[in-house]
Amino acid sequence: MFRATCNTRDFKKVINATSNLVDEICFEVDENGIKASAMDPSHVALVSMEMPKDVFEEYEGDIQDIGIDLEALKKIIARGRGDEKLILDLDVEKNKLNITFKSNVTRKFSIALYDVSSSNLKVPDIEYPNSVSIKAGAFVEALKDAELVNDHITLKIDENKFVIYSKGDLNQSETVFDNSIDDDDNALADFNMGEASRSTFNLAYLKDLTKSTAAEDLLKIYLGSDMPVKIEYEVSGSKLVFLLAPRIES
Amino acid sequence: MFRATCNTRDFKKVINATSNLVDEICFEVDENGIKASAMDPSHVALVSMEMPKDVFEEYEGDIQDIGIDLEALKKIIARGRGDEKLILDLDVEKNKLNITFKSNVTRKFSIALYDVSSSNLKVPDIEYPNSVSIKAGAFVEALKDAELVNDHITLKIDENKFVIYSKGDLNQSETVFDNSIDDDDNALADFNMGEASRSTFNLAYLKDLTKSTAAEDLLKIYLGSDMPVKIEYEVSGSKLVFLLAPRIES
Amino acid sequence: MFRATCNTRDFKKVINATSNLVDEICFEVDENGIKASAMDPSHVALVSMEMPKDVFEEYEGDIQDIGIDLEALKKIIARGRGDEKLILDLDVEKNKLNITFKSNVTRKFSIALYDVSSSNLKVPDIEYPNSVSIKAGAFVEALKDAELVNDHITLKIDENKFVIYSKGDLNQSETVFDNSIDDDDNALADFNMGEASRSTFNLAYLKDLTKSTAAEDLLKIYLGSDMPVKIEYEVSGSKLVFLLAPRIES
Repeated sequence: MFRATCNTRDFKKVINATSNLVDEICFEVDENGIKASAMDPSHVALVSMEMPKDVFEEYEGDIQDIGIDLEALKKIIARGRGDEKLILDLDVEKNKLNITFKSNVTRKFSIALYDVSSSNLKVPDIEYPNSVSIKAGAFVEALKDAELVNDHITLKIDENKFVIYSKGDLNQSETVFDNSIDDDDNALADFNMGEASRSTFNLAYLKDLTKSTAAEDLLKIYLGSDMPVKIEYEVSGSKLVFLLAPRIES
Repeated sequence: MFRATCNTRDFKKVINATSNLVDEICFEVDENGIKASAMDPSHVALVSMEMPKDVFEEYEGDIQDIGIDLEALKKIIARGRGDEKLILDLDVEKNKLNITFKSNVTRKFSIALYDVSSSNLKVPDIEYPNSVSIKAGAFVEALKDAELVNDHITLKIDENKFVIYSKGDLNQSETVFDNSIDDDDNALADFNMGEASRSTFNLAYLKDLTKSTAAEDLLKIYLGSDMPVKIEYEVSGSKLVFLLAPRIES
Repeated sequence: MFRATCNTRDFKKVINATSNLVDEICFEVDENGIKASAMDPSHVALVSMEMPKDVFEEYEGDIQDIGIDLEALKKIIARGRGDEKLILDLDVEKNKLNITFKSNVTRKFSIALYDVSSSNLKVPDIEYPNSVSIKAGAFVEALKDAELVNDHITLKIDENKFVIYSKGDLNQSETVFDNSIDDDDNALADFNMGEASRSTFNLAYLKDLTKSTAAEDLLKIYLGSDMPVKIEYEVSGSKLVFLLAPRIES
């Protein structure tokens, strides 16, 4: 038995964030809510999402795995309007997940289940020397700047600064977020530095995993030298975590 | 002699609606207004338009046929701003139709006439068991939902419901407009059922023939089992009628 | 030594206007400001820009040539927000131009200098029989109308009219700006006719050199028979001049 009701806007954000990196996923359902985690096909990035029971208006769930073609689900979810009610409803007999949008009109989609078994992947518990909280909009803009000069970028924490830079054969780009600037409009909400660190990452992955963020979302970024970067954010009570392996520089 | 003045916005809507299905058309002009009808190249759909004399600010027309390359006309019409005055003016000598947009600037296009003779096609007078009036916006959204799962859709009338559904190999989509819901915002404005009916249609055609509708336009849809669907709507006094043959299901 | 500060919006407009026609340019810097001029690769059009010292908030410049890949510069400039401060700063040692956008975040780009030497091109001093001032928006719309029927257009001045027309094999387009119409909304701000004149130009070039104008910008157009057309406009104190050779009609 699995049946859950929530608003379309929130579910859309969670699914979009997940589906930018992976093609299929297994929702691990139990009485406490929905969880899922998956690695991208080339095993460079890990995405994990958690929708606890109380983000839903109504929720009933027995323990089970629901394998989903994320591409198909994403297209269906995209058809929902933000102000509609969304009902997820498992039809065990027909091996389908029903997705119903309800406003003054009822629109119902059925999607065949995939044979994806639970991966039981866990976000590894790493100790990080540094963390920053930053507005997603400012971070994404810095990625776009970097994109002009190369396809990988370096994240650096040093003194009171979080720096995103990129260097091409000819040109160079650098965005400096300065924690010492005391400005209401500062993109940095939090800055914790243990030791100066830097790591380099594939830019396309970083763009994918921040693509579904809203400008005002707060990203919590955990950074160390030559460690995977961990990026966390919340969407109305649901939790998204991404881990991206660093690029080994020769 | 043919000379007619109207507002650009309305003429645009009529021409766009027509040109989605056919490439050339013959305007049958007489003292009462302009009429035209044509079948799409594969003879699955019929489109008919009628612009009576009184939708024009000024109108003078002798009986004649004006063959038009709709693609060229559509591009020219697209250049007009909604608030401009549009003047159609036949130059019999040069065998051209002049199209003038008038605001504080005068912009004049001349378009060569085509040798398209009047088809004298008539929308056949079919008796339908059912009809509904529905907001174009809601109908078009239902088509988009259906498009996710297959390239043809089924329109169904049963009890107090108008249902649009589509079934693919894996997934399924269904939109239910329920006439028994008494809601100001109900997309159904009218519902007349004679007998339960259903027919299946090519989705691309249905999209084409509703592409130029505005969300609040009221579509009158006539439906029977394995009969062509007839869709009518009005644009500021002009009348558009579409007939689409059903898909024969094996 | 070269260092200049201005607002991003204005610099963007000047650079975009220039880069539509040429790929690289040499900024001729001196204590009075920045100048540059270049011909397009096929030597049909000449573009010249002048940013005098006082359009900058701060300005310091010794005589020197700064060769720039306009495509790269344009992409970087596009990343700036209109409300940001823009700082240009020459790094002679590294042979780079630094471009910094400053708001609450500092974003710095470095762009390698090109070996483009100053062309010392001058806009030739031609005496024109006619000139008109016209709103850029109306002029650009007329170009778009003309584009529907052919790839070259004719500019004509006669009596009290500035006419833009184009003739294809089948169809024809004509926009008439009538100076005798006394209308606040008249696109013509000024009309000086010495002798009736007409010249024909490549449409793609005219579109390129007016692409970066805003609808309300006033273009000063100088026209004669079979002479290059000269188009001038100002962007917050900077001056842009374009010269386009006429099409020789056989």
